[in-house]
Amino acid sequence: MAQQERGKRSRQSILEAAAQVFDECGYDAASTNDILARTGLTRGSLYHHFPSKEAIALALVAAHGEALTVPDQPVKLQAVIDLTMQFARRLQTDPVLRASVRLAVEQTSFSVPPETAYEQSSAAILGLLQEAEERGEILPGVDVREAASTIVGAFTGLQIMSQAYTKREDLPERTGVFWRFLLPGLAIPGLIGRLRTTPPPVDAES
Amino acid sequence: MAQQERGKRSRQSILEAAAQVFDECGYDAASTNDILARTGLTRGSLYHHFPSKEAIALALVAAHGEALTVPDQPVKLQAVIDLTMQFARRLQTDPVLRASVRLAVEQTSFSVPPETAYEQSSAAILGLLQEAEERGEILPGVDVREAASTIVGAFTGLQIMSQAYTKREDLPERTGVFWRFLLPGLAIPGLIGRLRTTPPPVDAES
Repeated sequence: MAQQERGKRSRQSILEAAAQVFDECGYDAASTNDILARTGLTRGSLYHHFPSKEAIALALVAAHGEALTVPDQPVKLQAVIDLTMQFARRLQTDPVLRASVRLAVEQTSFSVPPETAYEQSSAAILGLLQEAEERGEILPGVDVREAASTIVGAFTGLQIMSQAYTKREDLPERTGVFWRFLLPGLAIPGLIGRLRTTPPPVDAES
Repeated sequence: MAQQERGKRSRQSILEAAAQVFDECGYDAASTNDILARTGLTRGSLYHHFPSKEAIALALVAAHGEALTVPDQPVKLQAVIDLTMQFARRLQTDPVLRASVRLAVEQTSFSVPPETAYEQSSAAILGLLQEAEERGEILPGVDVREAASTIVGAFTGLQIMSQAYTKREDLPERTGVFWRFLLPGLAIPGLIGRLRTTPPPVDAES
């Protein structure tokens, strides 16, 4: 049991070290030596968990999916907004998530199709938009697939721009501004005033 | 004169070769050897025009600004839409522009602040939005600076996602979808139906 626990911790420390190295250098420039140097583990221990740099990157991409926890909200458009806000906040503090986003955005020799991250995000948002549509929250005539894809694409760019200007410090604010521009083309008029486009209170997350 | 012309052609061929190499490999992995191999020029000729890889990258960033030619349109919101559509089209075919965008988006050792490309785009769009505001095309209460920044950020992400899915083939379509969602939060209601959110006819460009 203690050994299992140690193994789990080693694996997590490799992922965090790799995330930092990918986040700083990009995938192609990162080496397993750089990663090892930050963990204090042996090369054998690294290879025990991950046979290659690519295997580490794959595990990081999986972390991207885990960050898409759907908030429990009676108003489903509020859940979509909160999902992007929580993702924005986690990008500020979580190097593993940052690295997974960078792997999706940059064109590298990493061979997993970068669509994976977009597919995960689009699917999570589309599911909520379909529920919102069933509840009558969406304007008639809106194509929710187009909406999901536009939200994911726009958010991808907003977080890159926020990274360039403020190291993502202003990302929740930029996300809120985006929502205030988008909602009149997406939500029924009576709902817009009731939607919160600022980050949810911290104690409401879990 | 003939020599001047030859010099100009060499310079352009270096820029195009560099754009291809940066677009394929990213800035850090690109070498001046790769660039030279595609031009058939001598190393001396390369260094005559550009003392370093960074100097080439700087010239490519300047090309980004040149691509932002403001369309002449009586309706200024239409000019903003057309600007993004023309940019989308040029991204499909112009490797120099693609490379300049990639230099802005990816975090590399290239030391020019990536804000430059965002600043160029935001300034061009903000100028048009301010004219649109003066002409009464913009909804009361809209902050045109926020709008310009949101449009640039969102477009940045949409073109990355379009690159990942279709090598930018569907970028004009994604751009049109984005505008149809955004306009109800930006334009006065009476104007929206009169705005074209498809690419402008080719003969209307110059």
